[in-house]
Amino acid sequence: MPRVSLAFRAVSAAVASPSFILLIRCPDEPGLVFKITGVLFAHGLNIVRNGEFVERADNTFFMRTEFAGSFEAAALLARLREALPAAAHIRLADNQPKDVVLMATKEHHCLSELLVRHAFGELNARVVAVISNYPKLGDLTRRFDLPFHYITHEGKTRETHEAEVLAVLAHYQPEFVVLAKYMRILSSDFVAHYANRLINIHHSFLPAFVGASPYAQAYARGVKIIGATAHFVNEQLDQGPIIAQSVIPIDHTQSASEMAQAGRDVEKIVLARSLQLVFAEQVFVHHNKTIIFD
Amino acid sequence: MPRVSLAFRAVSAAVASPSFILLIRCPDEPGLVFKITGVLFAHGLNIVRNGEFVERADNTFFMRTEFAGSFEAAALLARLREALPAAAHIRLADNQPKDVVLMATKEHHCLSELLVRHAFGELNARVVAVISNYPKLGDLTRRFDLPFHYITHEGKTRETHEAEVLAVLAHYQPEFVVLAKYMRILSSDFVAHYANRLINIHHSFLPAFVGASPYAQAYARGVKIIGATAHFVNEQLDQGPIIAQSVIPIDHTQSASEMAQAGRDVEKIVLARSLQLVFAEQVFVHHNKTIIFD
Amino acid sequence: MPRVSLAFRAVSAAVASPSFILLIRCPDEPGLVFKITGVLFAHGLNIVRNGEFVERADNTFFMRTEFAGSFEAAALLARLREALPAAAHIRLADNQPKDVVLMATKEHHCLSELLVRHAFGELNARVVAVISNYPKLGDLTRRFDLPFHYITHEGKTRETHEAEVLAVLAHYQPEFVVLAKYMRILSSDFVAHYANRLINIHHSFLPAFVGASPYAQAYARGVKIIGATAHFVNEQLDQGPIIAQSVIPIDHTQSASEMAQAGRDVEKIVLARSLQLVFAEQVFVHHNKTIIFD
Amino acid sequence: MPRVSLAFRAVSAAVASPSFILLIRCPDEPGLVFKITGVLFAHGLNIVRNGEFVERADNTFFMRTEFAGSFEAAALLARLREALPAAAHIRLADNQPKDVVLMATKEHHCLSELLVRHAFGELNARVVAVISNYPKLGDLTRRFDLPFHYITHEGKTRETHEAEVLAVLAHYQPEFVVLAKYMRILSSDFVAHYANRLINIHHSFLPAFVGASPYAQAYARGVKIIGATAHFVNEQLDQGPIIAQSVIPIDHTQSASEMAQAGRDVEKIVLARSLQLVFAEQVFVHHNKTIIFD
Repeated sequence: MPRVSLAFRAVSAAVASPSFILLIRCPDEPGLVFKITGVLFAHGLNIVRNGEFVERADNTFFMRTEFAGSFEAAALLARLREALPAAAHIRLADNQPKDVVLMATKEHHCLSELLVRHAFGELNARVVAVISNYPKLGDLTRRFDLPFHYITHEGKTRETHEAEVLAVLAHYQPEFVVLAKYMRILSSDFVAHYANRLINIHHSFLPAFVGASPYAQAYARGVKIIGATAHFVNEQLDQGPIIAQSVIPIDHTQSASEMAQAGRDVEKIVLARSLQLVFAEQVFVHHNKTIIFD
Repeated sequence: MPRVSLAFRAVSAAVASPSFILLIRCPDEPGLVFKITGVLFAHGLNIVRNGEFVERADNTFFMRTEFAGSFEAAALLARLREALPAAAHIRLADNQPKDVVLMATKEHHCLSELLVRHAFGELNARVVAVISNYPKLGDLTRRFDLPFHYITHEGKTRETHEAEVLAVLAHYQPEFVVLAKYMRILSSDFVAHYANRLINIHHSFLPAFVGASPYAQAYARGVKIIGATAHFVNEQLDQGPIIAQSVIPIDHTQSASEMAQAGRDVEKIVLARSLQLVFAEQVFVHHNKTIIFD
Repeated sequence: MPRVSLAFRAVSAAVASPSFILLIRCPDEPGLVFKITGVLFAHGLNIVRNGEFVERADNTFFMRTEFAGSFEAAALLARLREALPAAAHIRLADNQPKDVVLMATKEHHCLSELLVRHAFGELNARVVAVISNYPKLGDLTRRFDLPFHYITHEGKTRETHEAEVLAVLAHYQPEFVVLAKYMRILSSDFVAHYANRLINIHHSFLPAFVGASPYAQAYARGVKIIGATAHFVNEQLDQGPIIAQSVIPIDHTQSASEMAQAGRDVEKIVLARSLQLVFAEQVFVHHNKTIIFD
Repeated sequence: MPRVSLAFRAVSAAVASPSFILLIRCPDEPGLVFKITGVLFAHGLNIVRNGEFVERADNTFFMRTEFAGSFEAAALLARLREALPAAAHIRLADNQPKDVVLMATKEHHCLSELLVRHAFGELNARVVAVISNYPKLGDLTRRFDLPFHYITHEGKTRETHEAEVLAVLAHYQPEFVVLAKYMRILSSDFVAHYANRLINIHHSFLPAFVGASPYAQAYARGVKIIGATAHFVNEQLDQGPIIAQSVIPIDHTQSASEMAQAGRDVEKIVLARSLQLVFAEQVFVHHNKTIIFD
């Protein structure tokens, strides 16, 4: 039974342009751009868009090159490896939509945003399933013709619960897992399975509030701005490389719950924007930061 | 010798409109607005602008009323005290510019901003002096015909240094002290002298970075937004009631020093905006937050 | 057959608090706040939130008062009419969700946003139907269990087409009609049926671009910011009172279609925010501007 | 007696890093990056920062390369000309501060901002003079030890007045002329003297208001956002290529004069930001837009 109706296309035709993306990271040295573009030129490939950046802190060179043309991948990569230092990381990506699994808890706003974009072919990815530790968002998910896996954490150890989630993920083998307001802390073991492939969104404030009920704390402090941060998850909670951030102004007349609503509006747009960058291969992760070519 | 040349007016004529401001805070109960406006109406006074707010967390009522007309202050206040609960705080302010002292260290951007606005009558305050623990900004200050007090902290205990600063402040008796990038931590004793009258500006980030070199930390983490927070100073460093905040977007291509420049642009505008609010009596401090009528 | 499943509540319980809203507009004169709050106090009603504003351009007084308590509406209004000048407009509103019809053409982003918020009880309104001049968004609408009226304009005069739309609207008798990217210009006659009850969202730029393909024009000019404006519709296209506006930064690397995507993100949030204000009776329309109590 | 104290350095030492900037524009064709970087590599030069962009609308290639090393300029340019298509524009710039003249009328905010930044070595340019059609800002200018040329336009034809201004400019031979709130419309003849070297700042709104008193119009319309646009001046008033834009939110409680104050805060920061980009050779002008490498 087809999951997608005629009115909904999971992937936009516009995305499927026949271009490729070359992603290179290596210790900086003179002549890198010359050597890399030389290999592409020798293969008759045409650069559509190019960006380079050198992180001075550790002299690391990053280059992202979109190009078009026909070529034999193994040969191209071999020539690049010859031309570049041994320590270079070279990745060749196509522009095909990636498989992703979305995880959520009870709040719908990020999941809704991603399901709607997906339904209209704007996500540049194929959502293959939704996993939640509560049943609440199942109805929403099924309206968009996607499988919903309800895996409660109640009465289970963290290990057991995560093992069940990992088993479902293993079935789908997604390239990325998106925590669209998944409100459980994940163990380092879980995170290690999806290094640099696990994306989270969380509220953020100036100043930061630690602990429970951040909006209640923000109200008590009278903050004037609330924001959201999308980031890769690493072993330290909410401390991974930042992909995108945004804020909106508020004032003392807004209650903690109105502040939370404003926060949700920012969260969903920031998460969608960060996925757009990641799925288009515009993001390098380097130590604890991102290098973004937009 | 006059401190101010003809081209520079310390206070704009436009500010000196003959209006008054009534500021009331008291436990909420029915009929407060009716009673307060009744007293004003009975005195034949005309309300120009009015705002009320009830903080539900502790049922506290706040009202700020700008009014015009002629009246006898003692009689008006006596009638208000009769009409309101015994616990009410009542303050009657005029629209005259307040005396302020600015304190700075080595960075000029906030001091420059305030001195320029002051010189053109845009600050709604009278800057009576600048105090610094370094000599660097003396030349700038004197160009704007204001006294500059260089009080080094070197070779002195905190107590001694603060005593010297307090002595200069005592001479000027300012209504407000503005820390325009004054980079020394002040003791609780010092702060207690200027409770709710001491305003600070500091950089802020999503997430917050603790300790030295915040811009270096922000660069290492790859933050996408930097901001500034103007706040009243209380006993906990950078934890006082927030008056104004703003942010600007940045990206990985900006070095730590470029981020600092962007941060300075935000800081000076946020500080100036917060002073505009405070000097126009638009800000109540309540516990650790502000209630702002703008 | 119920239109709404169990998982979806059309209206949040949180919204249905038992408060009322008094909206008064009249020529300014001394004592208005005193007189109005006196009537409420005499009825034993408790003010929850109050705001006043005087438009100096024509000395018009506006007041919005949220209050709680039990009362007899006719008696309250009669007392207010006695207390206020003859020219006063007095309106008493409850906090019940209003019926609204959404109109759209082919773009889904605003309609999706409103349907999702409605499904989760966040819209503070009851969406009773969707009308479109294309069939494209019917599938989406039906997934949210709402009636979809496809009324093509092809082969019809404007009068005929609008008459058909008005007939459907007459059936639903909505309090507000929301143009959620409805891309047909409406006649003055149509607009007159829904004076101050017809809300539109449109892209906006600095500077403004007139005519077709605004994103193509904005790209050619290299604008650095794009935005969205939600406004009431009046007889001049896109010239009615502004309710909410927002912007996002862009740069030359974004194609016209990427700019359009960014514009859509802003449009939907601005439209939702403007509806939140209007549906909560926070917006007065006065001549060609809005007075907003938020 | 020197007018400039030790505390003020006209140009920051930090700016004078020994790097060079190569700016190339030419019809796009395969291999351009390879050829250009090949020439630099052959000269033993090290690329510090590189950016390219292809404007698809007319297939024009832009490249900005910062590099370091020692070289013979004529030889380098000759080799680049050999390597590139005949239609290529090639420019080699150093990182030295440029001479600029500032022009203003009566409002001080942009001039103050630039004079303060210049005084503290933050402008990456050498301000050689200020020209105004009113005497008002002379005192400010002289406080910063710069020549002030008061050239009234009263009782003169536009031609005569502009001829006088051009004569003063001819004396200073500035690389750029900055209109820091210069409120006279300049003739096409004047503009032609400084094609792509004349920068203006003006307020901007959503929607745009044409004619006099824009803030009064914006107030009457109740706009929620005001902004500022910095742009190169071309023959059509306010229609030249945009360099930078920003906005701030406002509401109906702000009077036209408070809106103007908010507008001034945005204007000065946007103008300073745009000059930072232009003076660092980060801006290409292409037809009526800018390509910015930041």
